Amino acid sequence: MPAPEPTPSVVPSARETESATPRGRTGRLPPGGSLGRPGASSSTRLDRWVLGRLAGIFAGAPIQLVLWDGTTATLGRSPMAAIGIADRRTLRDLVLRPEIGFGEAYADGRLTVHGDLEGTLETVFRHMAGRWPRPILPHRATGASRSAARHNVHAHYDLGNDFYRLWLDDAMVYTCAYYERPDASLEDAQTAKLDHVCRKLRLRPGEHVIEAGSGWGALAIHMARHYGVTVRAYNISEAQLEYSRARAWREGLAGRVEFVAGDYREIRGRCDAFVSVGMVEHVGVRRYRELGEVIARAIHPGHGRGLLHFIGRNYPARFSPWIERYVFPGAYAPALSEVLPRALEPFDLAVEDVENLRLHYAFTLAEWLARFERHAREIAEMFDERFVRMWRLYLASAQASFASGDLQLFQVLFRRPLDGDAPSTRRAFYQDPPA
Amino acid sequence: MPAPEPTPSVVPSARETESATPRGRTGRLPPGGSLGRPGASSSTRLDRWVLGRLAGIFAGAPIQLVLWDGTTATLGRSPMAAIGIADRRTLRDLVLRPEIGFGEAYADGRLTVHGDLEGTLETVFRHMAGRWPRPILPHRATGASRSAARHNVHAHYDLGNDFYRLWLDDAMVYTCAYYERPDASLEDAQTAKLDHVCRKLRLRPGEHVIEAGSGWGALAIHMARHYGVTVRAYNISEAQLEYSRARAWREGLAGRVEFVAGDYREIRGRCDAFVSVGMVEHVGVRRYRELGEVIARAIHPGHGRGLLHFIGRNYPARFSPWIERYVFPGAYAPALSEVLPRALEPFDLAVEDVENLRLHYAFTLAEWLARFERHAREIAEMFDERFVRMWRLYLASAQASFASGDLQLFQVLFRRPLDGDAPSTRRAFYQDPPA
Repeated sequence: MPAPEPTPSVVPSARETESATPRGRTGRLPPGGSLGRPGASSSTRLDRWVLGRLAGIFAGAPIQLVLWDGTTATLGRSPMAAIGIADRRTLRDLVLRPEIGFGEAYADGRLTVHGDLEGTLETVFRHMAGRWPRPILPHRATGASRSAARHNVHAHYDLGNDFYRLWLDDAMVYTCAYYERPDASLEDAQTAKLDHVCRKLRLRPGEHVIEAGSGWGALAIHMARHYGVTVRAYNISEAQLEYSRARAWREGLAGRVEFVAGDYREIRGRCDAFVSVGMVEHVGVRRYRELGEVIARAIHPGHGRGLLHFIGRNYPARFSPWIERYVFPGAYAPALSEVLPRALEPFDLAVEDVENLRLHYAFTLAEWLARFERHAREIAEMFDERFVRMWRLYLASAQASFASGDLQLFQVLFRRPLDGDAPSTRRAFYQDPPA
Repeated sequence: MPAPEPTPSVVPSARETESATPRGRTGRLPPGGSLGRPGASSSTRLDRWVLGRLAGIFAGAPIQLVLWDGTTATLGRSPMAAIGIADRRTLRDLVLRPEIGFGEAYADGRLTVHGDLEGTLETVFRHMAGRWPRPILPHRATGASRSAARHNVHAHYDLGNDFYRLWLDDAMVYTCAYYERPDASLEDAQTAKLDHVCRKLRLRPGEHVIEAGSGWGALAIHMARHYGVTVRAYNISEAQLEYSRARAWREGLAGRVEFVAGDYREIRGRCDAFVSVGMVEHVGVRRYRELGEVIARAIHPGHGRGLLHFIGRNYPARFSPWIERYVFPGAYAPALSEVLPRALEPFDLAVEDVENLRLHYAFTLAEWLARFERHAREIAEMFDERFVRMWRLYLASAQASFASGDLQLFQVLFRRPLDGDAPSTRRAFYQDPPA
């Protein structure tokens, strides 16, 4: 049993150290009170009462909250970060709409984190596991129409290939990698992920694969090159399609990999295997059945199989409203109990294998974030400082969510129930990849 | 596309070959009409109309239906078996209540299958996939109270250790084996299953395991002997408990494996890992949440994990009413969408791994059935011929259900979400077992 946590204490500032401090992503914990803004008005009794409420919600978390005048609340023992709150509006938002207010204030620079950002978030998430105030209403099931899907995808994936190239691996794989060893490079881990997916699908030369949501084309091209299959890949990001087609052409695979402008609802024709990596998050619970219909219509009635790779949760819960509003419009991370009875069970598709790779995603995000930071100046020139702060928080909070077990990464392999006559094991998934 | 199926034809008997035929489990397909019973009354026009209805339901299945007077309906091309229907009551039951009528008539000897029993069942199940008449009402969720659970378990597992010893492996493992190679012996495949479960749980020496539903003790004893853990195993079959305790004592493991008379609701204390192999089928959907509470209370809040191994389905559907009434009172095979949101999600337990081993169970059942047949005479002397027919049909239809994809075998591995800091793969599940 953990020892009882200290009661959060609110200490009004003596305003003795009002020098401005650098607002970096990381940095040593500044001395108490040094986050005050020179010239800012003093906090009122009401402000300090609100700060006390906020401190109560996060009681025991190893952080300090510091108001604009240096007033400090220490929430737990050995604080690993100080959170500077620059004005009254930010303080109010953190109490009234914390899930969205934190991110908005961070992006604006009205809220600053002094200390290791992702480490602090992870520690707070772990500390708060099971303690977040429960929302009063159940979350609303959503489902993106075709035009909404186009809008959502454009808003995120069409930020420019030049931007993503700065911090993704060489093959531009923007989904969870697979670390066969914790010290693998991101490049190796992404290649290992592509092979892991292909081996799970037990692809055979000459087979035909349909991919829904193909990113910059890495999986489709890898399947065609190394597993001898033909691929038709559907995508609705123009920037990604253009990149993918050029790459397939350059590598002499244009005859075997076709990139089609269309979303999953436009899939036509039959395939031996269906695969979708990182798209289910954008479909919406209310459309999972439609997705299942598409899959069931597409895969071979005898030996057909498929794999869905998606960010999920341990139970149905609302996705981060901040990420949904500012980073990934329409995104939702489902529980298995939301996907299976809608997308697979109505079509008598047998779940063959589920694997949870959440810690692999925490490692992937750590590497993306490190590369992002190395190019922060360039990215600020492409966009602006606000964009950099927003994406920094998005990557760091996602890393913290996977590391703390708040988010999961599921690979669900399924197949027609009639297939097969001798029992197989998964041993082949763990043999060396084909040359 | 399969070619259109022939319309079933009903051919009245010329009564030319009325000799009685041997009623064996298998045998060559008898010549048309030879299943008639000498001296039986002729079938009426109504009988033949009912036979036509029955033939319509199974149209295209490669079987013949033969009435008591030799009247024959050939349902599909190249029939692989003839099903003899000995009287009007049997014919009526096959149309009005086929799911229970078939098994009752088979056990009574009023219905005989001439041809390979399990092969015919599998072919019919494959043929009928997606074509079974849908029940009008959804199936009723059940849940066994403690006394019902005791009654149900006693009715099946307390038939006598001498009976089960005749056809199970040496260690008396009465659950799906794991065939690392299709030609493995049943003994090796059961040992491999025990290791597969232990490796998935990543057991470490000195840890404590709680097992719910421990059969004849094979897994508990294997874990203690080969993985250095202590085990507390709960069971409500007196015959199994007695056998298990004697074995642990004989093997010098009584100090490390405790067999407790009690069902899962009586589990007390903490463990590092929770395991249950072949018990969920007896719990009932309405009690899954209670089972989840027991698990969540028992496993360590930090590194706790567990494994549920159970017979399941691709979607919620009623279990065979005949098996439920005559063989396994109260049994139910759930879909994953029935188990996960009740037993795991409310307790924030993360699904780490799901594996479907249905073809391994088809192989296991084939071996059990072969051994059962070798001891059919002894078993008839222990019980009676009716019992032998009933169990033959139970084992054969279960084998056919797993082989045809009607039943699944799920192993669900789960763990607390906070556990772990480096990503791991499942490669270790496929390394050599400890000495």
